[in-house]
Amino acid sequence: MKYYGVIEYIGTGYHGFQKQEGLPTVQQCLEQAIKKVTGEEVMVEASGRTDAGVHALGQVVSFALANEKQAYALMRSLNFFLPKDIQFLKLQKIDDAFHARFSAKRKTYMYVFYVSKTARPFLENRALQIPKEINIQAMQQACACLVGTKDWGAFVAQNSGKTDFVRTIYEAHIENLAENMYAFVVTGNGFLYNMVRILMGTLLQVGKGKLTVQDLENVIKQKKRTLAGETVPPYGLYLKNVVYESLDEKA
Amino acid sequence: MKYYGVIEYIGTGYHGFQKQEGLPTVQQCLEQAIKKVTGEEVMVEASGRTDAGVHALGQVVSFALANEKQAYALMRSLNFFLPKDIQFLKLQKIDDAFHARFSAKRKTYMYVFYVSKTARPFLENRALQIPKEINIQAMQQACACLVGTKDWGAFVAQNSGKTDFVRTIYEAHIENLAENMYAFVVTGNGFLYNMVRILMGTLLQVGKGKLTVQDLENVIKQKKRTLAGETVPPYGLYLKNVVYESLDEKA
Repeated sequence: MKYYGVIEYIGTGYHGFQKQEGLPTVQQCLEQAIKKVTGEEVMVEASGRTDAGVHALGQVVSFALANEKQAYALMRSLNFFLPKDIQFLKLQKIDDAFHARFSAKRKTYMYVFYVSKTARPFLENRALQIPKEINIQAMQQACACLVGTKDWGAFVAQNSGKTDFVRTIYEAHIENLAENMYAFVVTGNGFLYNMVRILMGTLLQVGKGKLTVQDLENVIKQKKRTLAGETVPPYGLYLKNVVYESLDEKA
Repeated sequence: MKYYGVIEYIGTGYHGFQKQEGLPTVQQCLEQAIKKVTGEEVMVEASGRTDAGVHALGQVVSFALANEKQAYALMRSLNFFLPKDIQFLKLQKIDDAFHARFSAKRKTYMYVFYVSKTARPFLENRALQIPKEINIQAMQQACACLVGTKDWGAFVAQNSGKTDFVRTIYEAHIENLAENMYAFVVTGNGFLYNMVRILMGTLLQVGKGKLTVQDLENVIKQKKRTLAGETVPPYGLYLKNVVYESLDEKA
């Protein structure tokens, strides 16, 4: 029986989602909890890996169990054995053909930042501090040129190992979360390695007046990593949710 | 020279604000940082104590230094030596007569809670989980009877040692912070020991349909602690800000 689950996790204590020998990872915690509850050794699939320090508010995972369990009771037991910084928000039975990664249609990430001369305790490891005033309106305008099917060669880590950089961004904007606190929210059919963090770094160049919206369009066209902004740190990044065609609602 | 500062702290790691022999407290951290930076041993006054586990977004403190320092440089140095979960947001010179506690005119607290069957990692030690649907509208209505100058004898910890329970609440309401996440926000000229946490516990009784708004009015009138709701845990409580007559803006 196949299950799909929505999980929330604080990435700070983990070396990313994917299992790595001798390092704490989200996948390892999930598989250990499933082993404890069901006795079964399973491979947990996720909608995608998240890097060390990156958070998730709605990561989707799937796994198969030989012995069927009632989904809600299973979720309660898994949450009991999971660390408090990784918890299932939802767990349901699903069609055997479902695969958290291959069935994903679109994903939304958000990158949270705040403008303040002083670091805020509650945002430590949760958001990027920007010490000087920035032009949020210019960043908002720049978001408009991100929408579409484009070659994102300028916005990928140089060690990504990929050669096809074409992805579609459906929606991108800056959201005002609270006083002096914002999120760059972006939805696409897929993202290259470090893509959201490099997009954010480049938008911050726009906010600081170092790049114009026209410059950003040129950076996209020229596809050179060196023209784009820096890769901002992982701790401001959140995988917000993943949408599947086969599921009626947002998973 | 007297200084007043606004600090933010995560209360989770501390046994409250006030110094206690052998236990980590916010006051101790502040005084140690001031010692390291200035060499002076000072007593830091706060607008009020917060209990173990209670947070502050805008606690106000004051202290006097024998040797005058430039306020912004002093703040930067103090923040460097302070733990990351206690930081100054603001530090300014102020009139010698200023005292963070005695000069305070009104304080705003908020108590954060969320409605969810599952615990949310990002809200661990930050907000109270309410596992079942509650009637937020009824709670909102109940907030209206809290406004005024009243004897709050029903809403004080029985070991408070106080006998005068009259305090004025200027404003009280339920704020919708995010999806299924709310805060009870209350402003008054002063609060009794555990008062906000007992008010919150009683409002939750209203939300659960166990007390009506009329019942709440009777609880206030009868001044019996046993008629009010339970004292909710400290970790949902935040000292939001403190207002002083002598300061133009909210400190």
